[in-house]
This record gives sequence, structure tokens and C-alpha cells, in this order.
Amino acid sequence: MTFNSENECMDSWLIVEEVFDPYHLGKEEAIMSLGNGYMGIRSASEEKYASEVRNTFVAGTYNKFYKNEVTELPNIADVIQMEIKVNGEILDLKQGHVKGYSKTLNLRSGELERTFEWENTNKARYAFKFLRFVSMDDLHLIGQRIEIQALNCDTAIEITSGINGQMTNSGIQHFADGDKRLYDQRYLQLVQKTTESEIEVVINTVHTFKRDDICFQPDALVVMDRRKIHNAHQMSLKTGETLVIEKLSLIHTSRDLDESIEKLKERSLAHLKVIHPIGYKTLLSKSADAWLTKVWEAAPITIKSGNPYDQLVIRFAQYHLAIMTPAHDSRMSVAAKGLSGEGYKGHIFWDTEIFILPYFIYTHPNIARSLLTYRYKTLSGAREKAKKEGYEGAMYPWESAWLDDGEVTPVWGAADIITGKPTKIWSGFIEQHITADVSYAIWQYYNVTGDQSFMDCYGYEIILDTAKFWASRLEWDETTQMYHINNVIGPDEYKEHVDDNAFTNHMAYWTINLAVAYTDQLKIEKPHIYEQLNERLDLTRVYQEWIKKSPLIYLPKPNEQGIIPQDKTYLSKRLIDLQPFKTQKHVGSIFKSYNLSQVNEIQVSKQADVMILLYLLEDQFSNEVKRACWQYYEPKTLHDSSLSLSTHSVLAADMEQLDLAYELFKRASKIDLGSNRKSSCDGIHAASIGGIWQCVVNGFGGVRMNSGRLRIEPHLPEQWEELVFTIIWQGVKIEVSASSKGFKVSLVDSVKPITFFHKDEIYVCTGKTSIIYAQ
Amino acid sequence: MTFNSENECMDSWLIVEEVFDPYHLGKEEAIMSLGNGYMGIRSASEEKYASEVRNTFVAGTYNKFYKNEVTELPNIADVIQMEIKVNGEILDLKQGHVKGYSKTLNLRSGELERTFEWENTNKARYAFKFLRFVSMDDLHLIGQRIEIQALNCDTAIEITSGINGQMTNSGIQHFADGDKRLYDQRYLQLVQKTTESEIEVVINTVHTFKRDDICFQPDALVVMDRRKIHNAHQMSLKTGETLVIEKLSLIHTSRDLDESIEKLKERSLAHLKVIHPIGYKTLLSKSADAWLTKVWEAAPITIKSGNPYDQLVIRFAQYHLAIMTPAHDSRMSVAAKGLSGEGYKGHIFWDTEIFILPYFIYTHPNIARSLLTYRYKTLSGAREKAKKEGYEGAMYPWESAWLDDGEVTPVWGAADIITGKPTKIWSGFIEQHITADVSYAIWQYYNVTGDQSFMDCYGYEIILDTAKFWASRLEWDETTQMYHINNVIGPDEYKEHVDDNAFTNHMAYWTINLAVAYTDQLKIEKPHIYEQLNERLDLTRVYQEWIKKSPLIYLPKPNEQGIIPQDKTYLSKRLIDLQPFKTQKHVGSIFKSYNLSQVNEIQVSKQADVMILLYLLEDQFSNEVKRACWQYYEPKTLHDSSLSLSTHSVLAADMEQLDLAYELFKRASKIDLGSNRKSSCDGIHAASIGGIWQCVVNGFGGVRMNSGRLRIEPHLPEQWEELVFTIIWQGVKIEVSASSKGFKVSLVDSVKPITFFHKDEIYVCTGKTSIIYAQ
Repeated sequence: MTFNSENECMDSWLIVEEVFDPYHLGKEEAIMSLGNGYMGIRSASEEKYASEVRNTFVAGTYNKFYKNEVTELPNIADVIQMEIKVNGEILDLKQGHVKGYSKTLNLRSGELERTFEWENTNKARYAFKFLRFVSMDDLHLIGQRIEIQALNCDTAIEITSGINGQMTNSGIQHFADGDKRLYDQRYLQLVQKTTESEIEVVINTVHTFKRDDICFQPDALVVMDRRKIHNAHQMSLKTGETLVIEKLSLIHTSRDLDESIEKLKERSLAHLKVIHPIGYKTLLSKSADAWLTKVWEAAPITIKSGNPYDQLVIRFAQYHLAIMTPAHDSRMSVAAKGLSGEGYKGHIFWDTEIFILPYFIYTHPNIARSLLTYRYKTLSGAREKAKKEGYEGAMYPWESAWLDDGEVTPVWGAADIITGKPTKIWSGFIEQHITADVSYAIWQYYNVTGDQSFMDCYGYEIILDTAKFWASRLEWDETTQMYHINNVIGPDEYKEHVDDNAFTNHMAYWTINLAVAYTDQLKIEKPHIYEQLNERLDLTRVYQEWIKKSPLIYLPKPNEQGIIPQDKTYLSKRLIDLQPFKTQKHVGSIFKSYNLSQVNEIQVSKQADVMILLYLLEDQFSNEVKRACWQYYEPKTLHDSSLSLSTHSVLAADMEQLDLAYELFKRASKIDLGSNRKSSCDGIHAASIGGIWQCVVNGFGGVRMNSGRLRIEPHLPEQWEELVFTIIWQGVKIEVSASSKGFKVSLVDSVKPITFFHKDEIYVCTGKTSIIYAQ
Repeated sequence: MTFNSENECMDSWLIVEEVFDPYHLGKEEAIMSLGNGYMGIRSASEEKYASEVRNTFVAGTYNKFYKNEVTELPNIADVIQMEIKVNGEILDLKQGHVKGYSKTLNLRSGELERTFEWENTNKARYAFKFLRFVSMDDLHLIGQRIEIQALNCDTAIEITSGINGQMTNSGIQHFADGDKRLYDQRYLQLVQKTTESEIEVVINTVHTFKRDDICFQPDALVVMDRRKIHNAHQMSLKTGETLVIEKLSLIHTSRDLDESIEKLKERSLAHLKVIHPIGYKTLLSKSADAWLTKVWEAAPITIKSGNPYDQLVIRFAQYHLAIMTPAHDSRMSVAAKGLSGEGYKGHIFWDTEIFILPYFIYTHPNIARSLLTYRYKTLSGAREKAKKEGYEGAMYPWESAWLDDGEVTPVWGAADIITGKPTKIWSGFIEQHITADVSYAIWQYYNVTGDQSFMDCYGYEIILDTAKFWASRLEWDETTQMYHINNVIGPDEYKEHVDDNAFTNHMAYWTINLAVAYTDQLKIEKPHIYEQLNERLDLTRVYQEWIKKSPLIYLPKPNEQGIIPQDKTYLSKRLIDLQPFKTQKHVGSIFKSYNLSQVNEIQVSKQADVMILLYLLEDQFSNEVKRACWQYYEPKTLHDSSLSLSTHSVLAADMEQLDLAYELFKRASKIDLGSNRKSSCDGIHAASIGGIWQCVVNGFGGVRMNSGRLRIEPHLPEQWEELVFTIIWQGVKIEVSASSKGFKVSLVDSVKPITFFHKDEIYVCTGKTSIIYAQ
């Protein structure tokens, strides 16, 4: 099997698999998954295999299966699977002989293509081509086209295809059975409803048949099984003839519009009747056009590299950033696996704000606004959580789902290898930095976009209310005469129940100070907003607390060696030889030797912790401290989290260690695109994919918002001849074009000048003419 | 593929499949399923295939998935499946080369064996043997033994095996997730709880490894996934060595004993620790001993035939009768598919009382009593149903499940081919004869066994209360001045909403008259029981209704040709050429040409309707009427129900049409044992299997209870040299040995004489000496 491994990448628009491996389907299903932010479909094949994971997710349709479980994104009825029987044998690549197999995801058009020649056990030979897309133009539409050519014999063909509502999330059924109907002898419809959240889902599908380009209607028998409706079609094909089957399907849900199930059924059926005569090819080309305008022309990135793989990587990232993000609805945000797998149950983590959001902030500010609006719409849940835990203000859930779901982190995880008991997952209780991360993201969004209306409506309220949480969270210590934050998990999840985690304390302090600054400003500049918020949040009292407590917050400082202690005890923990785990084949190998409580007592980190602090609050730490921390922590970091490598790459680029930065960028890309067939089975790594964009634009491109100013300091790895990308700063789109010789900034479709900094010098870019700076 | 087809049957204890067909797994999974009445496990293979249906059912653990659905028997966590990786390749018979494949169910011992040689794609060769049983001795126990011999190379082996709670009923998950634990580094435990009925299920499993008979402990990593706990074992094998894996698993549920989940977990784990050192072979031999005493020695049947297939058929029937029947618990009865498939959701129909029960009445009266006690325990539900429908007394549900579930017939079925809408299933509303069938079965049980205590405790009450229902169900018609029963479905389900169905009217009339007779008798002989029942059932009033209404019940009479009209309009319905459907390959083919409402207007029957009436109430109809009805109805009967052929076979034997009876017996046997690979996918046909026993003992053996007397009139088909079987009459076990020359009746282990009739002559069998009668 090959996944465009570095040396074999031929086309930087195509993800290609050339050998079919029926025992490792998960990775290709996920990394080649299709979608449009409204829905995501794993690229399981039309024919069934025992180890497949066949998933269709629609963003925001969370359901809770049972009272003691958490909500998750349910696996909706499948329309992709078909049973194809030629000459009495069911198509199955485990049997017979396969020639010329390839499966290709075209990132530009969003079309998946699979072609091969199959000889069945009776020596009958067929050429198969499977085409598929999820429309970027019509968010409800799934198009399929299958071409079967009989190569050496006349053939009876049976195609069983329809809508299958027997799908589950690893055995969990989230839907109650609903109506099944056949309309006009050809339109199949299946209805399902989530058991607890009562979201209605209506799926419609229709088949069209052509033989050598002439439409015909084969014998068809409609079969209604349990949660299933399908047609069994029978037809014949002469030697040399090609059969074409087009299947068009639509998914609509009651999350889309607030309407009765009858209206929903009618509307979706009418929708199918409109698109049916248009046909696959035209619908695909509309979708490809939407890909162009929404993604490839909106935020083009060109990497001229000796290796076209580098260009492929950033396109792969942009492709997935587009399909994972429910840009159409601000009641939703991006899940940790996007819509490409059951992993993390479709839940939303800090991954969105810290790793994914920067892409949208700099290229699609309207989408960034939508994602942050989601956090505003979940504010009441965050307030409830704070109250429940005995705090004030807004305490965001570690894992978030539907607006009023509140905290959805599961409580129990994998087995403890020593005791045999499941391990308690503490994140939902004590991984609290998420509440600062959300405010940080808003601050970044505001400074990059200048979206004052967002701040007035949502932004200030979130920031002030999270600051209120942090103020109530602080713990006074008589001995030190300071405020501490004890018993937390920082970003490094290999350290549970630590006190004074550097990242957490600094981010909490930062949030409170930001709140103080904004409050001061609001009082003067927007007194009516101040008054509204004061009424809601009791700012008069809280403000006093902020200014009283803030100077007394304990902030872990660099020690004599310039190393910021990750937490109160990290630096005094046991040191072990980490070499075996640093060179591990699979992440998490340390748990084969140690259980979590043992790992807790070792100087080992899962991921960037102090490092991400140095990245997010980069102004506050000297280069010496950054270097010293890198030297100390990187060798102790296993990068067992997919959130780790991209941060390290950006920091390495900052430190001008470009070979290292490039190597880390490559390693980050291989979290999903590498040869490990097991790495992405549960879904792509959304944060890592956001991180890839950060490596390119924030790292090598050197783009940063510092204290509200745009900084551009490109530093390309020597493998790259040129890097060209666009960003939007304060509503103005600019193109940055960098090479080893220097870089150029030009306005795109704008006459509004913009100002940026480069190595502490201020520059102004005006008009459409571009300015070149020598590095 | 061969299933001991008639011509190839070599051993009448073995069901053998000699060619593996991965696309038609359902049949072998069902007909070779293992069980013990407590649980049933389909014989899916250890390795996974896409089209498998892997089921483990425990009797009585019904659950309702969602408010608008009916309860069903849930698919419990699986212990059978294992992933076996040899030399880096996963065992999968679709890949590589398979030699010498056979899968054999040994009916005598209840052991399933599968052997083959597998050469993987790298030419590494292995001999595999898979052995498995569900214990007839320890109802909770599942034993597995796998032998792998490396034939031509040293081999690294990985075995992933444990407990998988991701199983569903066609996508429906009936369990909430529960605890997973590893104890003592080797005992795996998984807990699950049904979502609505809250039945706790605890499954424990343990593995033992031997290499060339020496125990060893391979490297094992415990993995807890969602609803899953398994061990990944790694080991190696030298060329020629044999690896043996024994896996012992136990299933306990809170239906067993009323105890806390903690007690249940402890008890089941302790149980595993006791059996673990005993090992597969000894546990199997205990189970095989139990098969001998409980089945093969308890009710032996010998058929000396030119074709050993005939002997196999009756053993196959007895095997399944044993494993399908929850003999251990009178809160349960036999499901229409036993415990061998999801079909009919584990529900109980009239199949039990009319088709299956006679076997137990005549051979295991204690089990028959338990099955009838189930109907007593569901009496309150039957009363509720009557009340809900506006009637008095007890109206048994058409489909029955747990004691207080009431009517569980689903309301919607397959698609109407014309309208495209799902068809309404009317059985739950108007297929009412079940209520007479239960009373008929009790009467039969009582007369055959003489179990007066059953009658006193349960029997009278059921019969009187069902008669009370029928009296209230009757509809007075002014024109005819008679009582009718309108708008019903009789046994023939191709006629819905008919009036005066012969079977229903006669059985209702019969029930009321039986109630009158018992009431008269109770008043005199058991006045205290009468008084109790009078209080409960208001007998004084009801009795008056019975004697007033009974003579006025309209009973369809034979017409001039001697034909009893199946219902009011059947004989005037349209006649069509049924030949294409009489010679159909698959049942139900008529629905490819007609929808149900069209079929309703044609003289066509799904199954015996008038014929079963002539069988059950045989005393009341002359031989001429029986023959005339046969001539009329059989050509119009498609035998689309598996309840049809055996009844026809028995009646053909009664009419001395022995070639026909034999042919029908064969056809009945092929409902499950025939070559149609799709016939038993949803589970075996329990009623048909009960019917096979009736063909042999009631048909060819000529055993019948007539008006409380034992009648024995054997008439063997010419292919049979001898038929020997035992039955128990009024507590006395007798052996009947018949040949073409005559037959012999002997007492078995008894000195109590018994009386029987033969061709209207009375005979007495005394002492241990046997008496021979010439026919």
C-alpha cells in the first residue's frame, strides 16, 4: 500500500492508494473521507468488508444513548454500500483477481475515484470505476456513479442498493426506527429519529441506469427490512458494454430548519426530484466550482519545493479543514476528528480554538466568527458547570457537544495494566485551561479581524465571564501569601492532579488582566455595554477582585537555567531513559511499561505544555528562556498527542532552526498521511491538520499577531524555493510571497493600506503594487 | 456446499458442510447453532466475515429499544469471535488457499468442529481445528478449543480474543455499557444491562494456552475498547508444533437469580475459577453425558431406513427441540426461531402450543408443564389485552415475550409493491385463534399426562378464562339468528379480515364447550376450586352465557362436495393458475405478482387452515370430509408457512397415503436441512422442527390422544424398515416398535399397565413383557 509517501508523490492534488488491503481499511476511510462541514462520510467502499467502519455524520445531531453516557454524533443511515453481483458472484476484492487497483481522492474537486479490473473465480472479467462526491455546493447531496464494463462475457448483473439504517457507532444505535417509503416506484425514503434529542433525519435516494449511455429501467424489487429500504435491480450486459449506475442521495434533518416531519419529508423529496434530472456530472462540476471559490481561490497556498509532497500536505490540510468545519451553522463547531470518524464522539475540545481556528481567523474570518459564536451559545452550559463545581463565571466544558449538553467528557477510559480496572478520565473535572483558551482565541480573532460587532455582542461577555471564573478558581495560600491553582491537568495529559501548571496559571492571569483592560476600556468607550454586562456579571464587585487578586497570582518563573517548571513538582520527578519511547512505532507505547500513576511520577510529557505557553504568549518570554525550555522539555516530550509536533515546528522556525522545523512539519504531516495504517482509523486528527497550516503560515511564513500588530517574518526551509499564501488582516486580503531571497507583500482586491512589522521595523503596504523586502 | 443432502448423508448423527461459502453464512450459522435452552449461539466462525450474523441469545432477557417498538430478545456480547494472525496474515478463508474444509455439528455430543488446512498468501501452511460447545450440563458455559499446527514454517502468532459487547440486533443496541475488568491478569469480565428491562448480564472468559501439550502463558496485553475487553496474545510456534487455545466463557444474568450486580459478578467469576482448571475436554464430556441422559436416552427414536438421512432428520429435530426450549424456567417459552436467530424477535406464537409442545407432552411432560405454566404466568397480560380490545376474559397476545409485555406483534411490515408503503401487520389485532390454541394444548397435556395438579393450579383457570373471552367475542347477527366471529385472520395468513373462519369458529366453540364440561365437573368434584375460580372469573354469570350462546355459534359445515369453507367468502373468491407459485424456488413468490390485498381476493392459502382443524379436532370430521378438503385445499396451499407441510404429512399418513406423507415429511425436513441457502438465515423454523417429530410419531407412528384415550396406529412409509420410539402416557414410559409387519408396545422401567386403542380395539400392555400385534 502506498499513501503518496514522500518519495512517490506525483501530483500534489491527489491522495492515492494503489494497493487494496482489506485488513487496514480505517486509515483510507478517514483520510480520504468526503464532506462539506454539514456532513462527513468515511470513504468505505461500495462492497462490504468485515473490518470496515462505515460512517455518515451530520454535524450537530448529537444524541445521548443512555442516561449514564455522554452525547455523541450518531452514525446516520448509509447510502454508499451496494451489493454488486456479476455472473452470480458478489464483487469482493478478497476473492478472484484484481488488476490495476487505485483509489484516489482529488482534493481539488472533492471527488473520490476507485478503479480496477476484477476477474471473478469463473474467469469472468470486469472493469469497475466507482466515483463519489459529497457536494460543496448543495450541502445535503451525495453523488455516486458506478461504471461496470463486461470485458469477456455476457453477464447477468444484480445490484442491491438503497438506504441502510442499521448503522451504529461501534454497536450503539442512536436512532429510533422511522417510516420507510417508496415514491413513484423509484424514490426511496427512510426516516430516523435520535432517541433522546429527537432529531428527525430524512434520507432520500434515487438510482438511474444507463447502458452504453442509453437510459433504461431495470427490473427492480423494493425490499423493506428492519431499518432498511433498498431496491434489488436485475439487468444484463453484453460483452464490451458498459453499465452506468448513478445514485443521488440527500440527507436533511430537523436541525436544518424548525419544521414538522411531514414538511421535512416533502421538502427533501421535492429536492431530490429537482436534482435527479441534472445528473452526476453536472452536480459534481457545481460542487467542484464551489471548492474552487470557497477554498482554493479563497486561500491559495503555493509551496515550490523539491518535493511535491509538501504542496500536497498543505492542500490535504485545507481540504480537511473545509470538510470538518460546520461553517453553515454557528450552533456547531469542529470536532476533534472532524466528521471522519467515531473517535472522541464528535466532541469539541480546545483543539478548535488553539489549533484549527487560526486558519479561519486569517483566511475565512466569517467562519472563525461562527465557530466562536458557538462558544457564546454554550455560555449558559459553561456557567452551569462553574456553579456545579463551586465557582463563579463561565467554566467551559473540556469536551463540548450540543449547546445545552454541558460537560460531555466520558468518565472512564482504557484499562489500567496493573490493576485491570478502567482508568478514570480526569479531564472533564480538572483540565480547566480550556476556559482561558476560548478567551485567548477571541482576543486573537478580534485583533486580527477587527470585528468589533462580535466583541460587542459576544466577545466581551465571554472574556469577562471566564475571567470571573478564574478569579473564583484561585486558591489563597497563607504560607506563600499568593494565589495558586492546584489540582489541574495542563496541556500535558501525562501529569494529572498537578499544582501551579505553568500554562494554566499564566493563561488564567492573562485572562484576568485582559478582562481588567477591557473593562476599563468599556467603562469609558462603551458605557451602555459595560452597564449591560455589569448587570449580568456583577462586574463592579468582580473587577475589584480582579485587581486585588491578579498581582498575587503565582506565575511559575524560569529557574537559574532559564527553565520554566511545567508544574510545582515536575522538575523534581524521576528521570528515566526515554529513548525507547522517543523512537516508538506507535504512540502511547510507554503504557506497555508503566501505568498512568507511574507515568505521573516521571519527567515525561505527552505533548507541548510549557512550549505552547511560549508560543501563545510569545511576547512575555525571552529567546533565552524559549531556547532553554526547548532544550529541556523537547527530549522529555513523546509527542503522543497529535497537538504536539506542529507547535514544536512553529517554535523551531521561530528559533531559526529550519531543518528541525521542516523535519517536525513532515512528522506532523505523517500523523495522518504517514504509512502507519492504524493512526487515523478513528478519524483524522483535526488539531494536527490545523497545526499543519500553522507550520506553514505561522511558522515558515512567520505570520503572527503580536500585541495587536501584524508581524511577517518568513524563514523558509532550504527545501522550499518559494512559499506564497494569502491572509486577511483587518478585512484586507494580502498575498505574501516568500523565497530564500526575501519576501513580497501585495494587496489583493483592495486599496486600503495595511501596516505590518518585520524584525521590529514597521512597513506599510498600499495600493495594488507590491513591496519587496530583503530578509 | 453440501448439507447432508439426502444422497450424501453418511452418518445420521452429523450435520456436515464441506464447502465454505462466505456469502451464504446464515443457514449454517442457524442450523448448526449451539445451545441448551438457557442460551443459544449461532455458529458463526471464529474469524469475521462481512455477511455473518453473529448472535448470542439468553432466553427471557427481552428488552424494548424504544417506546414505539416491541420487546425483543437482545443479542448479548459475543465471546466466539477471535482474530488469528499467523505470520502477519489474518486468518480469512476468502484469502489464500483452503484444503480439506469441513464443518460438522455432532448432534449426539453437541460439539461443533471445523477443520481445514490454510495456506496464506505467503505459502505458509497451517492445519486448523476449531471445536466448540455450549454445555448441556452447565447452562452458563461456552467452551472453545482451537488447535493450530504450523506445517511448513516457524510462525509468529497473534490471537486477539475476549468479550465484545458491540453486538446488535440488526443495528439495534439493547444494552447500556457496563463495567469491564481484568482479574488476576487473566479473567476478563464484561457487564451489560438492558436499557429498558434493566437485566444485568455478566460475561466472564479465560484463555489457556498449550504448545505441544505444555501449558504456557503468552505475552498478553489487555485492551478495553468501547463495550469491549480483549487480550492481544503474542506467541511463536516452530514448524510442526501445535498450539492449543482453550477459551472458557460463562454468561450469567439477573434473570437467573434475584441478586445485586456485585453478587452476580462475584458469583460468576467464582464459577469461572472453578471450571477453569477442569479444561475443555472434561467439560465437553460432562455436557455430552447430559445430552445422553436428557435427550438421546430419554426419548430415543430409531428409524431404520434405506436412507440414513431419515434418521438424521429426526435427530436434527430432537437436537433443536432441546436447544430451543428454556426448560429451566417456567417464566419462558419457545420462540419461533428458538435461540438461533433474530427472526420474529424471540417472540412466542401458537407455534409452541400446537407444533412444538406435543413432543414435550409425549416425551418430557415436566418441560411441557413448564411451557404451559408460562401461559399461566402471562394470564394477566392476556386479560389486559382482552379488556383493551373491549372483551372479557383472557385474550392471549398473538406474539408473546416477557410475562408482562402483553401483545408484542410489530405493527408494520414489508413494503406493499403497489403503493410503496409499509404494510400493516394485522395479526396482533385479529389473529385471535391463539387464545383457543393455548386451551387446546392444556387439554392435550392434561389428557396425555394426567397432571391433575397442573389443572388445579393453572389449567382450569386458563381454559375457563379463554372461554370467557370467546363468549364475549361472539357477534350476534339478527338475520342468521346466530353468533359469528367476524374480521379475523385464521391460520392462513393470506386471508385477512375474514368472517367465520372455520378454524377459529370451531376452536372457539370447542373451548366454550370444554369450559362448560370442566365447570360442571368442578362444581361436583372440586367445589373449592370452583369457588375460587368463580370469585375470580364470575363463573356463575359466564356459565349461563356459555350454555346460552354455544348452541348458536355458527360453525362452517361441509358443503355438498364435503368441503368446509375456510371462511365466509373463500370459496367464492377468484381462482388463478397457482402452478408457478406451487413450484416456486423461494417462499412468498406470489408477492412478486400480487400485493396482499390482491392475494386476499384469490383462492390461495399460505398454509394449512381447514386442514389443521381436521387434525386437531379429528374426531369431529368424517374421513370423506377430510379427503374432500384435502383435494380442494392442498392444491391451493403454497406452504409458504413452515407450519404447513408437517400437518399435511400427518394427515396424509392418517389417510394411508404413505408415499405422499413421506414426500411431505422430506419436504418439511428441507425447510431447514434443504439446499436453499437462504431459508434459515433468520433462524431455524421451530414449529417445523416440532412438526418433524409429529410426522414421525403422530403421523407414521400413528400416536394420538383421542377423547382422552391413547391410540396407536403405525403406518410406515415403504422406505422404512423399522421405527422405534418411546412416549410417556399418564406417567408410564412405553416403547413402540413398528415395522411393515406390525408393531410392538413395551413398558419401559414400569410395571403399571397401560391401555391403548388400535383400530377401535382396546389393548392392555402389562409388565415388562411386550405384546405384538399384527396390523
